[in-house]
Amino acid sequence: MEFFFNPQGIAVVGATPNPLKGGNAILKNVLFGYRGQIFPVNPKYTKIEGLTCYPSVSAIPGPVDLAIVFVPAPLVPAAVEDCVGKGVRGVIIESGGFAEAGPEGERLQKTLTDIAARTGIRLWGPNCMGLVDCVHRHIFSFMDPRAQEREEFIPGTVSLVVQSGMLSAIFLIDIMSNATMGVSKVCSVGNKVDINECDILEYFLYDPDTEVIGLYLESFSDGRRFLDLCRRSGKPIVVLKGGRSRAGAEAALSHTASLAGNQRIIAGALAQAGVSEARDFKQMMDLCRSFAVIKPAPGGQSRVAVLTLSGGAGIVATDFMAEHGLTMANLSASTRNTLEKLFPKWMPVTNPVDLWPAMERQIAADVDVYSLSLEALLSDPEVDAVFLHVFISNPRSRLNMSELAARIHAAGKPIIIWIIGRRDDAYAFQKEALAHGIPVFTDISRAAECLAAVLGERYRPAPMIADKKDHRTMPNPLQELLNSASGPLDEHLSKEVLRAGGIPTVQEEIAVDAAHAEAVAAALGYPVVMKGLLPGGIHKTELGLVCMGIHDDWAARVTFASLMGKMEGRGRVLIQKQHPGRVELILGLLRDPQFGPCVMFGLGGVMAELIEDSVFAVAPLTHEEALKLIGRVRSSKVLDGFRGAPPVNREEIVRILIALGEIGLCQPRIREIDINPLIIGEEGAAAVDATIVLG
Amino acid sequence: MEFFFNPQGIAVVGATPNPLKGGNAILKNVLFGYRGQIFPVNPKYTKIEGLTCYPSVSAIPGPVDLAIVFVPAPLVPAAVEDCVGKGVRGVIIESGGFAEAGPEGERLQKTLTDIAARTGIRLWGPNCMGLVDCVHRHIFSFMDPRAQEREEFIPGTVSLVVQSGMLSAIFLIDIMSNATMGVSKVCSVGNKVDINECDILEYFLYDPDTEVIGLYLESFSDGRRFLDLCRRSGKPIVVLKGGRSRAGAEAALSHTASLAGNQRIIAGALAQAGVSEARDFKQMMDLCRSFAVIKPAPGGQSRVAVLTLSGGAGIVATDFMAEHGLTMANLSASTRNTLEKLFPKWMPVTNPVDLWPAMERQIAADVDVYSLSLEALLSDPEVDAVFLHVFISNPRSRLNMSELAARIHAAGKPIIIWIIGRRDDAYAFQKEALAHGIPVFTDISRAAECLAAVLGERYRPAPMIADKKDHRTMPNPLQELLNSASGPLDEHLSKEVLRAGGIPTVQEEIAVDAAHAEAVAAALGYPVVMKGLLPGGIHKTELGLVCMGIHDDWAARVTFASLMGKMEGRGRVLIQKQHPGRVELILGLLRDPQFGPCVMFGLGGVMAELIEDSVFAVAPLTHEEALKLIGRVRSSKVLDGFRGAPPVNREEIVRILIALGEIGLCQPRIREIDINPLIIGEEGAAAVDATIVLG
Repeated sequence: MEFFFNPQGIAVVGATPNPLKGGNAILKNVLFGYRGQIFPVNPKYTKIEGLTCYPSVSAIPGPVDLAIVFVPAPLVPAAVEDCVGKGVRGVIIESGGFAEAGPEGERLQKTLTDIAARTGIRLWGPNCMGLVDCVHRHIFSFMDPRAQEREEFIPGTVSLVVQSGMLSAIFLIDIMSNATMGVSKVCSVGNKVDINECDILEYFLYDPDTEVIGLYLESFSDGRRFLDLCRRSGKPIVVLKGGRSRAGAEAALSHTASLAGNQRIIAGALAQAGVSEARDFKQMMDLCRSFAVIKPAPGGQSRVAVLTLSGGAGIVATDFMAEHGLTMANLSASTRNTLEKLFPKWMPVTNPVDLWPAMERQIAADVDVYSLSLEALLSDPEVDAVFLHVFISNPRSRLNMSELAARIHAAGKPIIIWIIGRRDDAYAFQKEALAHGIPVFTDISRAAECLAAVLGERYRPAPMIADKKDHRTMPNPLQELLNSASGPLDEHLSKEVLRAGGIPTVQEEIAVDAAHAEAVAAALGYPVVMKGLLPGGIHKTELGLVCMGIHDDWAARVTFASLMGKMEGRGRVLIQKQHPGRVELILGLLRDPQFGPCVMFGLGGVMAELIEDSVFAVAPLTHEEALKLIGRVRSSKVLDGFRGAPPVNREEIVRILIALGEIGLCQPRIREIDINPLIIGEEGAAAVDATIVLG
Repeated sequence: MEFFFNPQGIAVVGATPNPLKGGNAILKNVLFGYRGQIFPVNPKYTKIEGLTCYPSVSAIPGPVDLAIVFVPAPLVPAAVEDCVGKGVRGVIIESGGFAEAGPEGERLQKTLTDIAARTGIRLWGPNCMGLVDCVHRHIFSFMDPRAQEREEFIPGTVSLVVQSGMLSAIFLIDIMSNATMGVSKVCSVGNKVDINECDILEYFLYDPDTEVIGLYLESFSDGRRFLDLCRRSGKPIVVLKGGRSRAGAEAALSHTASLAGNQRIIAGALAQAGVSEARDFKQMMDLCRSFAVIKPAPGGQSRVAVLTLSGGAGIVATDFMAEHGLTMANLSASTRNTLEKLFPKWMPVTNPVDLWPAMERQIAADVDVYSLSLEALLSDPEVDAVFLHVFISNPRSRLNMSELAARIHAAGKPIIIWIIGRRDDAYAFQKEALAHGIPVFTDISRAAECLAAVLGERYRPAPMIADKKDHRTMPNPLQELLNSASGPLDEHLSKEVLRAGGIPTVQEEIAVDAAHAEAVAAALGYPVVMKGLLPGGIHKTELGLVCMGIHDDWAARVTFASLMGKMEGRGRVLIQKQHPGRVELILGLLRDPQFGPCVMFGLGGVMAELIEDSVFAVAPLTHEEALKLIGRVRSSKVLDGFRGAPPVNREEIVRILIALGEIGLCQPRIREIDINPLIIGEEGAAAVDATIVLG
């Protein structure tokens, strides 16, 4: 990948002297900061922008690592072949008119795929804005060349991948002109014919100029590889996934033929991989820039002190701290002492610390109340982070930024600033703060959210999942069944598979006739449940094929006859012990086209269904991941012995979740597993009803 | 109130020539725009800022409607008495050092309360920033007089009440300098010794310069009056209530000795009164400015078309439309026709409308794709509102603002704009858009939220609640009991009260001995429930005093004996019909110190409790309000016959909710009612267990 970012020699194919055209913009942009050899390529010209222009890439005398191609789509394959001939290693194709542009474009794109596969040349794009490297001032993009004349690049440590060409350019202009954050690289991946977000993410993981990675994606090219890269990352990763809603996903499909995916699976997979999920563009930037400059407190705690000039702002800030699960610090005696000396006598020292009365009191004494208080909070062992409010246009709240920064960096504690006041002053402050690595926000809510994200549990490398291939098989004839059948297996067969995979199920047996039914029921012990199993029929309840609470021999016989009658000789009757349970759970497995087998966990019952309280994780699950998955349902407290009930043994559920994932991994023909319910009773857990669907 | 806003003659008490002091700032500020007579008052000077200075208010020759007082707190009562002597109608006391400043300040504030009560003079403040009227350029505040030199006032229709002095000033500077919105009046109410948020809100309701009202409050001075004002308002009202969280409420208490209140009751009361609740300051401004310029579509529908230059932005916008309950419009055939002509052939016309490919295609033809498309969407009968994206620094997305505004206003459809791009360009666009009444946002999420707020159900005047006093009493001896008892009533008495108030309860009777128990049980019909009622003991279940499923005479006798034994002779035994139910509800009444009797509604069961799915409304409830209250629980679908169960008759619940509120209104000694559960069965609803707490 290095030849894309730091190539030896660049050919600009489609260069032109016409300043209105992209081919000219690219050349100017490359000239702006790239210090290697640059070769315009266009048979129509001999010189462009003072450089010798070549009729083809193969005609270039020097070495060329990278070609940037911006010619009409139908000419692109020939241009790429030309690059292959020259020994070019990577091509960024910025032209549009491929898969996004109907069948003809799709055919052209297929040609590119074939060339890449055949020759090994790496292709980036097409239909993209290329890349910009603000640290090395490499602009390999047709974005407006005036941008870098008018705005400063602010080199930084955040690198971005944006699956939307227009956005990547306008983003950068917005970020630069607002001094939002320092940027390392911005990459637009376009149609991902060869290079995709995983390739770039992987490059970023090892890129010394990148410390935080933000991605706007509409699809995952290789979900499991993407997750593994995230799991391996020591760098914070923020993902904004477009197409969260059904309508949004449909829009995504029509946009770049992306597979938008099941939002709940994606959310689960990202959480599992330690990724922060953003929902809006600005929010993604805010999270990225926070991660870039704030490091969590060493102790891992999150007791926050709020220092404000307005009681009202302090109150609202406190509300948001609570909302994001942060704790308001109990100030130490020493801090309270310091503040008491500054405060008017009548005023108790509390957190949030409202400095205004102290400032009014000390105005004559010329005491720097603001700095003294901040100093006290930063050195307080009970305080892990400080949320500072700056009323920028108030002369009494002036802060010396260098002093402030020195104090903050010496304390080594996270600090965030909320600013309110005159626009120009706020901008000047923001710029200066950015230079000193201090994050500034104009919304209290966003500031709190970002502080919480940084203070929250950070990523620790987790076991890889992509290459996990397990070839354990089931005993025959189950394995044969799994290899050959298709569609839904009936309940009894489904549970046999689960049992073989290590998942406890309810005791049950198929009854062959009425007498056998009576015997089986008696052996299991009353009360029993009897079910009619129709081939392929999974809606037993709706068909009246589930009879609960059968209490005696006579009822068992009668029920057998009745079920057989209802099924008109096509099904069989299953008898199972009626399982007394305290808690009903729903477990499942879904083979996601992007992420592979995913395990689902949720609580049973109407309410849980209504509030959609179920969560997903990608298999295989580690013990810790399974535990976390259980904790992610909103109503997980039910498991802890809510309202005096004995708590549920989570370890048992963990084992079942892990086993479920393993079954999904070992049995690629299983498309779906639904265990509903898994009942947790006195004697442990048991899958009471289940369906496996083969694909 | 008019004399506060448009006084005839103003005395500035505490005026001084020292430009570092507030008394000088106030005088300069009054001079800035007030066109009536201004009288500085200070015995130390004879002339200040070119005006004759008077030793006292009573020494002023001309008429004085309003005095603005800024002298040390201990001198304020005398200054106010001086004003009373002169016949001044209103005094804005901007000095601090009162209730917020310890016992001595509280005593001083009490003196002010007494003067106001005795003399009828109206007092605003103390400890406040006064008021600013941007339309009439009245600045009756000590805010920095340089602010209005450096920033333009942008007169507008949004008026604000801010219970935090510092914030009101800095807010205004922030709003003015960012050209966020046009402002009519900003009022800082301070300690609310006399004038409170209700007085100002009421004034705003009739103020021809005010169309939208925003309030930042930490407490409600008179909750029921406040709600009634909101209910009466034809103007949109946005409230940010500080102290939503427990920690925030504690901070609020320490800030202005405010009663922070129960957040869920407040949220319910505001929703019921048609108020939009904000959570952050910027969000409050964004909602206010949206209400100021966007009017909902006449048809009341909310089908939105998104017009963008980036597929990615379109997708994310679509996600937020879905999140806020807005519908993506199905474009009409005529619109699709228009767009098809602009689009490249391969590109299907969908909503979101991604214009970029059309722009690329039409670039040579010099067709104004942007305007043509917008025109088509605005005139499409299937489109109720347009969400337009502006990539401000892209030369091809330039918009002529006057044309745009003319087009929008002619169409009469709500439009919101999301802007991204170069900071200065965005600011210029924002300023121009503000002048034309078009709302611009820099976050897609916020834009969507504000559009949804405007398109959502708007306020229609509702019946007043404050003066609702009902003197219906219960039949004796129940009324006597309610007048004289205190603490919790036992279950049986509680239900007698409910029954008398029109709430159906389960059939039940007290058993006096074992034989009677048997007879009662048999008469009710088995199975029955038997409960031991201890005086004042409301935790029956925890004490083992509830026995369900009693099936025969023998069990009834045994249980009677067992319950009496457990209660050691101190209680009595209640027998009730076991009520078979489909749905369990929890209803309640809580007498809130700010809002009076409030009705609570929630679903029963562990899950509902865990996710805190219960909602409040202030009594009395109208039929419509009770219906809406039911609809506000997240899991209200359970009532509609979820999973094949027959739907619950909401009308019956409505009647009970209304009755519950009436009981609370008629019986002021009832502090709390808890009906848990109310069971909805085949034969209708019945309160099965209930406790009334007298206060």
